[in-house]
Amino acid sequence: MIQFKSKDISNWKKRFRTNFINSLSGYKSANLIGTINQAQQTNLAIFTSVVHIGANPALMGMISRPDSVFRHTLENIKAKSYYTINSVQERFIAQAHQTAARYSTSEFDATGLTPEFIDNFPAPFVQEAALKIGLMVKEIIPIQINGTFLIIGEIQQINLPENMILEDGKLDLEAVQTVCTSGLDTYHKVQKISRFSYPKPDKALTTQ
Amino acid sequence: MIQFKSKDISNWKKRFRTNFINSLSGYKSANLIGTINQAQQTNLAIFTSVVHIGANPALMGMISRPDSVFRHTLENIKAKSYYTINSVQERFIAQAHQTAARYSTSEFDATGLTPEFIDNFPAPFVQEAALKIGLMVKEIIPIQINGTFLIIGEIQQINLPENMILEDGKLDLEAVQTVCTSGLDTYHKVQKISRFSYPKPDKALTTQ
Repeated sequence: MIQFKSKDISNWKKRFRTNFINSLSGYKSANLIGTINQAQQTNLAIFTSVVHIGANPALMGMISRPDSVFRHTLENIKAKSYYTINSVQERFIAQAHQTAARYSTSEFDATGLTPEFIDNFPAPFVQEAALKIGLMVKEIIPIQINGTFLIIGEIQQINLPENMILEDGKLDLEAVQTVCTSGLDTYHKVQKISRFSYPKPDKALTTQ
Repeated sequence: MIQFKSKDISNWKKRFRTNFINSLSGYKSANLIGTINQAQQTNLAIFTSVVHIGANPALMGMISRPDSVFRHTLENIKAKSYYTINSVQERFIAQAHQTAARYSTSEFDATGLTPEFIDNFPAPFVQEAALKIGLMVKEIIPIQINGTFLIIGEIQQINLPENMILEDGKLDLEAVQTVCTSGLDTYHKVQKISRFSYPKPDKALTTQ
């Protein structure tokens, strides 16, 4: 075991610190956020900070930096109120990662991913994605300490292959080769170990 | 493809909706949060919502419900300001999952996980965990729309095996069998596909 204190962390070189601290939360989801601006230019950006906020109402959150390539996503959500969350599958991880480059044109055009408009929803989905969620923004909460934002949206529509849905509502993310990420740049495939029963005191867990 | 709209979601049975909506963000990290109350009783709870907030200062966030078994974690953090984030490895996933049962005693005692006090840090780490992070709370942000909270802490100390640290600061989470989760109750092992170069326009990604 090795130990680092706050002072060590602030003394590290920037790139080392960024790689290290970005790894600490553990494995992260990989989702592409689709938006469109007032001039009808589409935007697509990979986020690894999408998080469950609540089931009823059905809410999802994500952390956005104010600067960098993620700025367009935040601006478009503020301007248009609607956005999409699209899960990343193994077959298009390189294109998904490439959306983080600093483009002035649409990342759909630049990466070859296909914008898909479903049912007149006012933001583009990613045709290649298995799981496509349309949201309306509900709160944009500033995080004072470092100028980032928590964007919270309510789910308006969900599009997915029916065979992902297990009998009790859980989704089988592996069935469509959904990936996870670590740090800033690493993509991983995933394999189920166990699904456990609901935990209660004095009752042993069972697995399925 | 099948499509669901907001109205379908609100008409689902509660358990089906909870399973379904909790699966939508994709794979989640698995972390045990260690706290202690004023009476020196330790508490341990599994959170799958830990998220990177920033690298400098080094900040981590997590979403907490006000009710349920996670209430003790929030109360202890408010009372004592310090807490720990401990990564979950494959060898103790059942014990980690069992911390979510509604105990009146310490989850350390109930599950057999071992509290570890390092360097007089005022909250318990999990001895069994490979990666152990000590934090001081900086902001507890209420999320008005559903009464949850975003808890943000600044990293005070990090304890980990030196062989997890790659040359450029990235951590090799697989080297210690760190797991990820999906939905409410499923644990997965993880295998690297690719690590990509920094994405730039008009430059092809390379892998390592």
